[in-house]
Amino acid sequence: MKFHLALTALVLAVVVAAPPLAAAPQRFEGLTSLMPAPASVTAGDGRFRVDENLAIARALEAEPKGGPKDRTFRAAARFMSRLAGRTGLFLKQDYLASQAPSDEAGIRYGFGRPGRLVPNEDESYSLKIEPGLISLDAKTDIGVLRGFETLLQLLSADEKGYYFPCAAISDAPRFTWRGLLIDVGRHFQPVDVIKRNLDAMAAVKMNVLHLHLTEDQGFRVESKVFPKLQELGSDGMFFTQAQIRDLVEYASDRGIRVMPEFDVPGHSTSWFVAYPEFASAPGPYAIERKFGIFGPAFNPADERIYPFFDAFFKEMAGLFPDPYLHIGGDEVEGHQWDANPAIQAFKKTHGLPDNNALQAYFNGRLLKILTKQGKKMVGWDEIFQPSLPKDIVIQSWRGQKSLVEAAQKGYQGILSNGYYIDLCQPAETHYLNDPVPADSPLDDSQKRLVLGGEATMWSELATPETIDSRIWPRTAAIAERLWSPASVRNVDDMYRRLGPTSVALEELGLLHIKNVDMLLRRLAGGLGIKPLKVLAEAVEPLKGYERHDQTAYTSLSPFTRFVDACAPESMPARAFTTRVDRFLAGRDPVIAEELGTIMSGWRDNHPLVLPLLASSPALREIEPLSLNLARSCKIGLEALGHLVKGESQPASWVQEKNAVLAEASKPAAHAALAVVTAIGRLVEACGGPAK
Amino acid sequence: MKFHLALTALVLAVVVAAPPLAAAPQRFEGLTSLMPAPASVTAGDGRFRVDENLAIARALEAEPKGGPKDRTFRAAARFMSRLAGRTGLFLKQDYLASQAPSDEAGIRYGFGRPGRLVPNEDESYSLKIEPGLISLDAKTDIGVLRGFETLLQLLSADEKGYYFPCAAISDAPRFTWRGLLIDVGRHFQPVDVIKRNLDAMAAVKMNVLHLHLTEDQGFRVESKVFPKLQELGSDGMFFTQAQIRDLVEYASDRGIRVMPEFDVPGHSTSWFVAYPEFASAPGPYAIERKFGIFGPAFNPADERIYPFFDAFFKEMAGLFPDPYLHIGGDEVEGHQWDANPAIQAFKKTHGLPDNNALQAYFNGRLLKILTKQGKKMVGWDEIFQPSLPKDIVIQSWRGQKSLVEAAQKGYQGILSNGYYIDLCQPAETHYLNDPVPADSPLDDSQKRLVLGGEATMWSELATPETIDSRIWPRTAAIAERLWSPASVRNVDDMYRRLGPTSVALEELGLLHIKNVDMLLRRLAGGLGIKPLKVLAEAVEPLKGYERHDQTAYTSLSPFTRFVDACAPESMPARAFTTRVDRFLAGRDPVIAEELGTIMSGWRDNHPLVLPLLASSPALREIEPLSLNLARSCKIGLEALGHLVKGESQPASWVQEKNAVLAEASKPAAHAALAVVTAIGRLVEACGGPAK
Repeated sequence: MKFHLALTALVLAVVVAAPPLAAAPQRFEGLTSLMPAPASVTAGDGRFRVDENLAIARALEAEPKGGPKDRTFRAAARFMSRLAGRTGLFLKQDYLASQAPSDEAGIRYGFGRPGRLVPNEDESYSLKIEPGLISLDAKTDIGVLRGFETLLQLLSADEKGYYFPCAAISDAPRFTWRGLLIDVGRHFQPVDVIKRNLDAMAAVKMNVLHLHLTEDQGFRVESKVFPKLQELGSDGMFFTQAQIRDLVEYASDRGIRVMPEFDVPGHSTSWFVAYPEFASAPGPYAIERKFGIFGPAFNPADERIYPFFDAFFKEMAGLFPDPYLHIGGDEVEGHQWDANPAIQAFKKTHGLPDNNALQAYFNGRLLKILTKQGKKMVGWDEIFQPSLPKDIVIQSWRGQKSLVEAAQKGYQGILSNGYYIDLCQPAETHYLNDPVPADSPLDDSQKRLVLGGEATMWSELATPETIDSRIWPRTAAIAERLWSPASVRNVDDMYRRLGPTSVALEELGLLHIKNVDMLLRRLAGGLGIKPLKVLAEAVEPLKGYERHDQTAYTSLSPFTRFVDACAPESMPARAFTTRVDRFLAGRDPVIAEELGTIMSGWRDNHPLVLPLLASSPALREIEPLSLNLARSCKIGLEALGHLVKGESQPASWVQEKNAVLAEASKPAAHAALAVVTAIGRLVEACGGPAK
Repeated sequence: MKFHLALTALVLAVVVAAPPLAAAPQRFEGLTSLMPAPASVTAGDGRFRVDENLAIARALEAEPKGGPKDRTFRAAARFMSRLAGRTGLFLKQDYLASQAPSDEAGIRYGFGRPGRLVPNEDESYSLKIEPGLISLDAKTDIGVLRGFETLLQLLSADEKGYYFPCAAISDAPRFTWRGLLIDVGRHFQPVDVIKRNLDAMAAVKMNVLHLHLTEDQGFRVESKVFPKLQELGSDGMFFTQAQIRDLVEYASDRGIRVMPEFDVPGHSTSWFVAYPEFASAPGPYAIERKFGIFGPAFNPADERIYPFFDAFFKEMAGLFPDPYLHIGGDEVEGHQWDANPAIQAFKKTHGLPDNNALQAYFNGRLLKILTKQGKKMVGWDEIFQPSLPKDIVIQSWRGQKSLVEAAQKGYQGILSNGYYIDLCQPAETHYLNDPVPADSPLDDSQKRLVLGGEATMWSELATPETIDSRIWPRTAAIAERLWSPASVRNVDDMYRRLGPTSVALEELGLLHIKNVDMLLRRLAGGLGIKPLKVLAEAVEPLKGYERHDQTAYTSLSPFTRFVDACAPESMPARAFTTRVDRFLAGRDPVIAEELGTIMSGWRDNHPLVLPLLASSPALREIEPLSLNLARSCKIGLEALGHLVKGESQPASWVQEKNAVLAEASKPAAHAALAVVTAIGRLVEACGGPAK
């Protein structure tokens, strides 16, 4: 009984103070929370004090390179603005309009030359913080941008105020291609979504935005040559060319390339709404609303499509300055080709034995068009074939194997398999997924052909309201994998730094934290959402393609339910699991009390959830989750009590409890409890010998 | 002692359940929460059930008016999307692509003709909800848009699911000009800010967006004729013409006019960065960073400015289709004119006795230019003079008096005095501010000249991060004043409806609720912000121009401090004050317990705030607020205890407590406690006779 009382008292104390698990405020402790971790950090003595007199300037010895036109100038202005935002300091330097003389500025930077937005550009920088001076030096201005982000992350605080800790940092990326794919085809994501994600990418030193612009569900870029493409294929939701130019400039300002993808010959229904004659089966076509792999594909045997692509890619090559252009090429379903006699005849005439060969023929034609426009080709695994030139890039979605094969044959590749952030996997799985793992069969020159990787944000289930929470903060773990040395792979430490990184990303306008409450308020029809938030701590969306398969989702479905408010990876759930494992390892009574507090809170939450379900029909689907959380926690508390007392339980008891937990772990409302496995471990431990 | 124990128990119970005051979830109770209140509502029997088969269509008897080009079509698509968002229903109708046959649709609407975006256009509608059919009819398509918003607000829920309550609504606006001014000059507000505010305006049936485009601090619109204006006068922060066209179309889709303002001849420093020769004193000029009334003004005596304005307004007249164009005209400071001998000579030559006459001359010249472009002139109070034509509109910022004078002389006017939402006054003060009050001296025909009013969001202290919270939800109260019958003026009922209205507005992307937490997380450097939220409940920013005067704010200052996270009007503080008054009126012991709970929570919050101050220097300025809240609540609890026991206290006791409260009410961190006055009433009551 004493134990139970102690737990109850603790519950109340903790809840009054702050919600459990989210309780400890991350402090401003810059040096230990850098993300991605730099290649080399040497901590020094002393502190550079930040006050309102702080100024920033290009070092005098550097030759002037255009004042306000220089991208470091705008980056420095953003740095100062974000620093002021965090510290509340009224910085005196009017950096938007004029540069301070560098001999008065506390932060001085210099660089050798303007960087180019191409692979293998130098992004290295060195940062030296002394009590009276911060020096940032880089070969290119892009390196300066990377250094600004590191410096901002270093912000620290003590009783005297804010400061930068003295240190010497020398840093450069491990991989040159650190990308984020955003699928604007399945659900359109407007300019403001892209811009805030570009800012977030820059904050974690990513450098390629891959815009997946066309899909069965939508054609998302304005063509002035073929305006029917967006007029009929987009429901009015597309980027104008002016918006694209704005985005490209915005990205360039942040040292980020924008690579467009036009996915052909499959995934192309939306093109055929305007041009049914280019498909391999007669139209008419309508914009696809469902998700999956669909039949419509361009007809490689129809000579009319090549002048079309010639004109179209010429237009797009002019719009997107990046040296690379992605032609997709994945998942050609083949039925249209198989059913079309003209295509069959064409294959025979041209000696193309199968559809792969037909697609290779098609790709070869596109390659010529792209080459004429000065663009290098990128495509998914399927485009790979030995006849292609060596400067193309293979993007691997199928796995490491295809990346290795390509490299062994001398082709460049980037890894996306294992970085599918839309699938709601834990950050850990992405973090440990290395484009060139320690056991790679590649030799050194082949390894250099692996340019990096891309996190892929496919948008079947993500709208502008929810996409940020599907991308962040987990993508920061991928960014670290691609930037930091291979040896940086301590999972716990990554998670420790992911917390403050996530909060810091919010200043860039991301909705990944704040839209949780918004979504819950809409469902509840009011401000009283506390019990829903508590439940959401213990719940995660279904993972992989489980959720996709639950319902006939379409691009018009509401993504506004409880599952959409749940984080792909619940940090409170992870912290709970970690505590369980620590407790089981050492039976620490302090951890036992913490676990008791947490499980009591979850158990007692169910009666608080019920009135919300009564008033909000859309929430009623979560009743099993809430009830099962209460039931599981009741079992967990019982098991914890036994373990604390050192009591062993018979196998029948374990079996009985496990049966309840198995039931409780079943999906409901397209989501599942994320804490049942850990509770199961407490139950299993009761079956062991008494302690 | 028993009383104290009871309070403590209650504190814990309430805090565990949900934060005090925000506790009660607003339910989906549509019929009683409409805002603005319609002109006429008759509740019926029965419920129209909302399920996934719900469809919407234009009534068959209405003549077709263009299918997807019709703005009601897009409005209906938005209606369905928002309905799906709230209910989580997978509506089967693919409304983006095709209209359902109207004889199958549950919601049928029709209208007589496309509405024009001009004053006095018909916006009336009638809405009839029966168990099997919802009919929405209007004279114009704009009326249909207004009706959709009413219908969405009617969404209700019971044990069977969502429904619309049967009712007959007949509605039309009281005033034809229901505007919101957004000042994008002092702090630029990008396209996404404007769009989400347009959506919010439409949700509360406002119909004029007044864009204050030029200020001393920035020239915010692209001129292709005079590109130096934005190139040198905006720090790169301006609307391109493509963006303006997009905004105008977006607004038009929502039945909202966009009226541009170019504030001349004063408030014009940013123009002179590019064109110093048009100012009344020699340059060079730099973009103004401070706020206030500044000297630079156009030189009315310089004949070169008129061809400039002729070309400039010709360009802008083409960009903005609204029949009205606002020339500002306020607060010409006059020093530059007085100091310029050429201007003095010009005044003498032209018989212009003073600067008012000189400005009138200038306005007269502009009027000719605008008239040539087919635009009617709008200006602030200062432009009014009897020689002007009768179709101009006077916007009154000085007060009712000038509006009345203008109307008496036959001029149209709109009221903004009393609607300065940037000044952080309670919604109540704006709500009771009537453009044509009951005691208006105007006769009926003069009253008709008062077209309505505009909420004015001046942006000295508002950035894209905070502006939504400065506009909403209080502007919904102004929207109701301008739309609903004059007799709708029950303040408590307005506040009751403002709560669910505020939550409903969030679905449009507004940050007014969710950025509170974001701002606090940035300051705290982490997720643990509960004590800051509790404190913020009891705090409001300084009101009127008190905060402006506290610090040398500039357009580059950080608006990221605690005060920026505080709502202009704290609903929890208001609820507390209301409870105090109710308790003092009836000495209800239940209310006493509630008050005890609230004040105990606030009192006990201070020790929880302190560790956050230790780790976040930017938060240290709030220590006096937190400490004074604790002190005040300690006094309040003491007073409450006496009142509950019916004990009277000597005058010296009252005096002593009041001295502490007076100290506690002093501003700190540009904010002040909003609950001290109410606590003072408890103290005062203790000085009365014992009960």
